[in-house]
Amino acid sequence: MTKEIGVGMVGHAFMGAVHSHAWRSVHRFFDVPLTPRLAAIGGRDKARTEDAAAKYGWAAAETDWRALVERDDVDLVDICTPGDTHAEIALAALAAGKHVLCEKPLANTVAEAEAMTAAAEEAARRGVRSMVAFNYRRVPAVALARRLVAEGRVGEVRHVRAVYLQDWLSDPAAPMTWRLRREQAGSGALGDLGAHIVDAAQFVTGSEVTGVSAVTETFVRERPDGDGRAPVTVDDAAIFLARFSSGALGTFEATRYALGRKNAMRLEVNGDRGSLAFDFESMNELSVYFEEGGTSGFRRILVTEADHPYVGAWWPPGHLIGYEHTFTHEAADFLTAIGGGADPEPGFADGLRVQRVLAAVEESAANRSEWTGIGGTA
Amino acid sequence: MTKEIGVGMVGHAFMGAVHSHAWRSVHRFFDVPLTPRLAAIGGRDKARTEDAAAKYGWAAAETDWRALVERDDVDLVDICTPGDTHAEIALAALAAGKHVLCEKPLANTVAEAEAMTAAAEEAARRGVRSMVAFNYRRVPAVALARRLVAEGRVGEVRHVRAVYLQDWLSDPAAPMTWRLRREQAGSGALGDLGAHIVDAAQFVTGSEVTGVSAVTETFVRERPDGDGRAPVTVDDAAIFLARFSSGALGTFEATRYALGRKNAMRLEVNGDRGSLAFDFESMNELSVYFEEGGTSGFRRILVTEADHPYVGAWWPPGHLIGYEHTFTHEAADFLTAIGGGADPEPGFADGLRVQRVLAAVEESAANRSEWTGIGGTA
Amino acid sequence: MTKEIGVGMVGHAFMGAVHSHAWRSVHRFFDVPLTPRLAAIGGRDKARTEDAAAKYGWAAAETDWRALVERDDVDLVDICTPGDTHAEIALAALAAGKHVLCEKPLANTVAEAEAMTAAAEEAARRGVRSMVAFNYRRVPAVALARRLVAEGRVGEVRHVRAVYLQDWLSDPAAPMTWRLRREQAGSGALGDLGAHIVDAAQFVTGSEVTGVSAVTETFVRERPDGDGRAPVTVDDAAIFLARFSSGALGTFEATRYALGRKNAMRLEVNGDRGSLAFDFESMNELSVYFEEGGTSGFRRILVTEADHPYVGAWWPPGHLIGYEHTFTHEAADFLTAIGGGADPEPGFADGLRVQRVLAAVEESAANRSEWTGIGGTA
Amino acid sequence: MTKEIGVGMVGHAFMGAVHSHAWRSVHRFFDVPLTPRLAAIGGRDKARTEDAAAKYGWAAAETDWRALVERDDVDLVDICTPGDTHAEIALAALAAGKHVLCEKPLANTVAEAEAMTAAAEEAARRGVRSMVAFNYRRVPAVALARRLVAEGRVGEVRHVRAVYLQDWLSDPAAPMTWRLRREQAGSGALGDLGAHIVDAAQFVTGSEVTGVSAVTETFVRERPDGDGRAPVTVDDAAIFLARFSSGALGTFEATRYALGRKNAMRLEVNGDRGSLAFDFESMNELSVYFEEGGTSGFRRILVTEADHPYVGAWWPPGHLIGYEHTFTHEAADFLTAIGGGADPEPGFADGLRVQRVLAAVEESAANRSEWTGIGGTA
Repeated sequence: MTKEIGVGMVGHAFMGAVHSHAWRSVHRFFDVPLTPRLAAIGGRDKARTEDAAAKYGWAAAETDWRALVERDDVDLVDICTPGDTHAEIALAALAAGKHVLCEKPLANTVAEAEAMTAAAEEAARRGVRSMVAFNYRRVPAVALARRLVAEGRVGEVRHVRAVYLQDWLSDPAAPMTWRLRREQAGSGALGDLGAHIVDAAQFVTGSEVTGVSAVTETFVRERPDGDGRAPVTVDDAAIFLARFSSGALGTFEATRYALGRKNAMRLEVNGDRGSLAFDFESMNELSVYFEEGGTSGFRRILVTEADHPYVGAWWPPGHLIGYEHTFTHEAADFLTAIGGGADPEPGFADGLRVQRVLAAVEESAANRSEWTGIGGTA
Repeated sequence: MTKEIGVGMVGHAFMGAVHSHAWRSVHRFFDVPLTPRLAAIGGRDKARTEDAAAKYGWAAAETDWRALVERDDVDLVDICTPGDTHAEIALAALAAGKHVLCEKPLANTVAEAEAMTAAAEEAARRGVRSMVAFNYRRVPAVALARRLVAEGRVGEVRHVRAVYLQDWLSDPAAPMTWRLRREQAGSGALGDLGAHIVDAAQFVTGSEVTGVSAVTETFVRERPDGDGRAPVTVDDAAIFLARFSSGALGTFEATRYALGRKNAMRLEVNGDRGSLAFDFESMNELSVYFEEGGTSGFRRILVTEADHPYVGAWWPPGHLIGYEHTFTHEAADFLTAIGGGADPEPGFADGLRVQRVLAAVEESAANRSEWTGIGGTA
Repeated sequence: MTKEIGVGMVGHAFMGAVHSHAWRSVHRFFDVPLTPRLAAIGGRDKARTEDAAAKYGWAAAETDWRALVERDDVDLVDICTPGDTHAEIALAALAAGKHVLCEKPLANTVAEAEAMTAAAEEAARRGVRSMVAFNYRRVPAVALARRLVAEGRVGEVRHVRAVYLQDWLSDPAAPMTWRLRREQAGSGALGDLGAHIVDAAQFVTGSEVTGVSAVTETFVRERPDGDGRAPVTVDDAAIFLARFSSGALGTFEATRYALGRKNAMRLEVNGDRGSLAFDFESMNELSVYFEEGGTSGFRRILVTEADHPYVGAWWPPGHLIGYEHTFTHEAADFLTAIGGGADPEPGFADGLRVQRVLAAVEESAANRSEWTGIGGTA
Repeated sequence: MTKEIGVGMVGHAFMGAVHSHAWRSVHRFFDVPLTPRLAAIGGRDKARTEDAAAKYGWAAAETDWRALVERDDVDLVDICTPGDTHAEIALAALAAGKHVLCEKPLANTVAEAEAMTAAAEEAARRGVRSMVAFNYRRVPAVALARRLVAEGRVGEVRHVRAVYLQDWLSDPAAPMTWRLRREQAGSGALGDLGAHIVDAAQFVTGSEVTGVSAVTETFVRERPDGDGRAPVTVDDAAIFLARFSSGALGTFEATRYALGRKNAMRLEVNGDRGSLAFDFESMNELSVYFEEGGTSGFRRILVTEADHPYVGAWWPPGHLIGYEHTFTHEAADFLTAIGGGADPEPGFADGLRVQRVLAAVEESAANRSEWTGIGGTA
């Protein structure tokens, strides 16, 4: 058994369940330099937090995140709360010398993200590491896509086509949630789904979005909330055009109204030597095209071979992995970075970069879709 | 045998070959009120036009389109030439009392399209019919999609996602053609491919594009031309966001640089009761989703049943049809309209509507992607 | 225009419609040495045969096939009738010095097929050509599959998996037809569908079936026939195991009870260097796997490129062809063989080979599935 | 926390890794009446077993399976060894009053399976439970398929089409393993892969195989083994025809030579009201066809909804699960049965039933494929 690292996690809903599984399992499959010890889980409601601790295997439950951050047995703080609380918790944890894994989007505003990035850079100089949880980078097929682009097998990229389609708001009777309140969620489909495809597109192509033209829409402006109704204050859908630093064109769409598309995070990249296509609903596959004369065609690579990214830790060829494995990969990468004294990717700076794109989308949408450059793009 | 109608066709390249096949075959499969007689084919080069006449089965060859239009044995003029000549030929034919089938895009400018539409309306009052050749409306799967939307099975449409992807310009060494010269083609991927998806999206949804925000790009600005090189003066790709009169959002992309996508004219529509998806590379299929509890899923309808649009004229279930069948359907619909004394769809007004969208795309692209309304939208 | 060849066709139902189209169109797309002239169509019912002549473009209608065969303006006899009449017509036509194209299965019995093959070989010495209409060899994707096997790209073949699935008898209320009467059809799904997959498997692999073990079944033994009911005297489904001369194993299934499979003629071949998969419901595609390390995967080749078999005669990449094109290809190949003084493939000997496999299937099925060698296999 | 149950597992290779994960995780996701305690892992090599104990989280390591079975802290014995040891271990464990989970195939011979079944039945009377690990029954899509058949939505089943295709022996240079030795593995592809599809076909249709006709083959008869070569004494592939008690026909194929098919366990069922198709390489999907007029088509159900079998324990719609989840489901079902005092399914009798089919396959293959009834079929 390697040296232990104490983990404290704030939040115990959907993300909390997945992250817990990752911390419990990562060392069973990956040779990590540090073995996670599930020290404490944090939540506001005492009973529910204690239930979560028992169910997910955490040693202690804290109802005050500040107390959790300050615990001596916590070396790493994992932030799984809504976006409005990310900055405060992350800044406190970094100040306390705790490594930080923060769920995406990094923050609800560019200003918060900038402050977090500055703090993370300062902390890194003290050996304190931070990572933003863009888990889709850890899908083996997505990591393979990046590898193929980096190796030049796709050539010069001309087009990026990225959508993230869900349908759980299609029904106007679907109830209100915190995800539909601007003050908590920051934005709607844009921040929740759009953030993933902006990061994935930049990650896979190795190129940055430099400007956008956007439209956002809220189709259903009020939803049932307890006995009454509450206003939806975020976007239901966001569509935008983009240019990349490489000269490629991009189209993006994030929506919760694409009936029948349950979790269709899709990315297609066309270069002058090859093309790539991915769909998270078939997450173990990567579709790849190379120009090969009369036998050219999009091939469906089942990304389950031992030499594919992350896959060697799992099962034989043709045996699929699932959603939560991406978090286990994330935990493995973070522990490896901490153990090796290196900054992990994606860092807070990557989260900030995405945040700036989201901000430009909202600005363009509010301004007759006028072309809007990304602040701070190199 | 029904009464004959003399057809004169101008142009003998790709479109000429397909249209010839339609005129030769339509009455073998469909009960049309008029049987086409292939009276004359027109082209500028005498030898090549005569070769085409022999190969495709036309009785005469004309090197002057005016002479063709004026022939007594020509009752219907079929225009298969580049866009810069459409207006002149169509106006002359309508003036001469000839029915006109005109390839898309209707014209290279809105002004030309307006003049053609006015002439078509005037001619219609004299019983002279005109149609624009948006053949993709005649794909059985596309016609079925429209039927399902019209029957309300998709509900209120929230999203339209339309792309037309080809890849024949991916290679920078691909040579110059008339399609890359603005003076002949009007525009590039926008007019050639974008026109199809704008029309198809409006046709299937029964709703009109009211405004756009656009980006166009020319990736390769010079191409080999004989011994030298010539400038490419049209767009290589066009991407745009749209709103529909129904309130739906749309994303559009037309490109000739999507390596591996040979003729991927794709359309997806998401409503609040159902969704539809089509890909011309699998043109005999329509993918449809209805909300049906635990057995919901996108179903692949093989659109080859006798009760599907147009299909009863062809083969048993599961036996596919191909690209040229859409032109045979078009010919059948046009002959039926002429024989029945009705105006066919899509008429020149529909072509004009598409032309206005294309013009708005170019205007927005030239104006920092600013939101641009569609002139003349009802 | 090349020299003409007079065609006489016996039969005017489904196959008659498709064959007529092929004879009318073949020279419009292919450079054939002989141009078909549609001289006469034959059928038993005078009125219906005359209607068919008018509809399909035949110059004359004959109600006696012997008269048709003897016409001076008929150089080629195309047999599109049920299997019980093939031998008689073919023998008469060959004796009269007419080239013969015969629909599959070649005959209803091995004895008939042997007689036909002997007559065809004798006729060939007089320059009279004969071909059996296994049109699925003319699907570009199937022809490409054979090319890839012949080039060694699949390596040594281990497995063949062939099914032909239809569903038009799933409903027990579907009415009686000649296809369900042994005296006319010879057998049921076995001869109608099984014949195609046996030929296709032998064609693609270049290897012959040497023995089989089989089960046949008639699920519904009586069907509505006019006011009464009639017994079904053929198989509804046939399943069989096979060995090939190459050492490969094969599984075969032909049925009309595979609900939802409309015309799923599927063939998969696994070799030690590559694999191939085809489905007629996506007839413009060939799925191919080569061992290529980390980017291996089944690729979907859209078989619509100019250098793919037959495709150069048709449309640009990505534009599909349909079912009837396979007959046009068949006509082109037959005319080319006749014009070039060569024996076409597949000849009657190929039809006999398939017939022997079908006979062995019936024998094994009647004999507790016992292994049954193919008579006459080299 | 619910009451604990001590688990002892024999075997620590591939199956051991997966089972360990299931025992560690099951109570984190499912409300099970007993919480597994990983008491001891057994293996022959002391160092390797201790490493496995540390890696997988077992409290103790035993090098003698008898010692493991007799431990007081072991209430349940999980058998993950090659098939030649199943009977001995299971009989000892049942005799010792330990619940038994046994990997498939249940045994290497029918006689062993009969003895095990008898012992299990006797033990059940003492409240000791046993289950055979046909984990593919626990794929949500497979369980949904069974539910649809049971509800009558498929109607009367006519056809079953089952294949299990792998390719890891395609290369003749692949080395020898215990799986290729008859004395350890019992049979080759037949027992390893064929057992799964026989069980799955019987499970989904609720009908039993009553007879078979079979061919087996060993393509490569010697393989590299250390410095030398060793004979392969099992089948490389097995193909067989079957009849079911319901009257349906079945075709089966198990092979390790289907190049490019990595783990294609596929099952298709055609009834007279509907059809089902499953492929383990897309294990989160079930393809379903119902007859619904003009909108009929195979629909791809993404089996990730909360009301699908097992899925409610996991993630939101569209978030996939992987291979090991089927073992977690198996553990949940077994613990639920033990806690509830009920016999779990599939029991040893189900394993015996499969074993008899496998024996009949070998008998038929050795006897000119002659039809062979299944011993003991009800």
